[in-house]
Amino acid sequence: MPYIHIQVTDEGVTKEQKQQLIQGATQLVVDVLNKNPETTHVVITEIPTDNWGVKGEQVTELRKR
Amino acid sequence: MPYIHIQVTDEGVTKEQKQQLIQGATQLVVDVLNKNPETTHVVITEIPTDNWGVKGEQVTELRKR
Amino acid sequence: MPYIHIQVTDEGVTKEQKQQLIQGATQLVVDVLNKNPETTHVVITEIPTDNWGVKGEQVTELRKR
Amino acid sequence: MPYIHIQVTDEGVTKEQKQQLIQGATQLVVDVLNKNPETTHVVITEIPTDNWGVKGEQVTELRKR
Amino acid sequence: MPYIHIQVTDEGVTKEQKQQLIQGATQLVVDVLNKNPETTHVVITEIPTDNWGVKGEQVTELRKR
Amino acid sequence: MPYIHIQVTDEGVTKEQKQQLIQGATQLVVDVLNKNPETTHVVITEIPTDNWGVKGEQVTELRKR
Repeated sequence: MPYIHIQVTDEGVTKEQKQQLIQGATQLVVDVLNKNPETTHVVITEIPTDNWGVKGEQVTELRKR
Repeated sequence: MPYIHIQVTDEGVTKEQKQQLIQGATQLVVDVLNKNPETTHVVITEIPTDNWGVKGEQVTELRKR
Repeated sequence: MPYIHIQVTDEGVTKEQKQQLIQGATQLVVDVLNKNPETTHVVITEIPTDNWGVKGEQVTELRKR
Repeated sequence: MPYIHIQVTDEGVTKEQKQQLIQGATQLVVDVLNKNPETTHVVITEIPTDNWGVKGEQVTELRKR
Repeated sequence: MPYIHIQVTDEGVTKEQKQQLIQGATQLVVDVLNKNPETTHVVITEIPTDNWGVKGEQVTELRKR
Repeated sequence: MPYIHIQVTDEGVTKEQKQQLIQGATQLVVDVLNKNPETTHVVITEIPTDNWGVKGEQVTELRKR
């Protein structure tokens, strides 16, 4: 019964990339833990770069350097 | 002090349905655990169907079948 | 495809109460949003009272008053 | 390796306020736990007031009183 | 800057399996989104089977069938 | 109505440090966003170092270097 939450910055992830993330994450728990894909959920959330910080700074600013 | 996070696909949940989810989830922890509704928070997040996968596939695609 | 996360303080929730939370939360999204219970997941996490704060204070301390 | 998730109602948080939250939360774990800011991530999510409930009511309605 | 949260039932996941999940999830966002592994965090949480429900029932009970 | 989730590795965080995190995080949203501390919740979760990965490796292993 895995639930996988992938949180990334909102920087133009395409529908195809999302499908690849969903497929890859599902396959990962099938391969490693022998989980049932029927009950494996993957959720992707895209976070604006103003709302994500590393080293105390917004990614928006880090991207400018 | 419950915090309840309800994550659903973004498929036209109305304001009234959100109110019903909030009221129902709050009542649930009041009834089952005798919690204080004053400190019970409910948060609903709506996820685009491209961003939610089950069985390794996007809900957008599963909905077409 | 709902995923419901119920976070409560770790203060002796019984197995029966957990079952009631799972059943009630599942029924809620079935009733309000017409969701399929087969793909409805409910996860309960129990947080030590030292690790939960309201009003800037640990629940452990608030409980003593 | 802290990961800090700040969830607030979506009521006009400015870019500058977000920067202050990121800086302050990062400094907090540096000061209290001696963590490395390089691996400290802060994520802010803004929740519509229809989607947040306290005391069984939507914040949208609570704000009107 | 991905943050990946893998939530599974607590049923004997070994240290090696955890390492495989961490490595695989990190590689996934490197391959699909060209992310930097240095800032990719993966967190695994293991949930007791009494605390996870599907179809309105505890996994503990579903496992008995 | 903020909800702040602080996720750290489980490496001996004391009760006093937890209180400082709760107080500091609450004060942060009071100072920056003028939030009401009465409805500000802070939750700390401690993650075993085997369950947290950065750069594709378990923190347990990274700590040995």
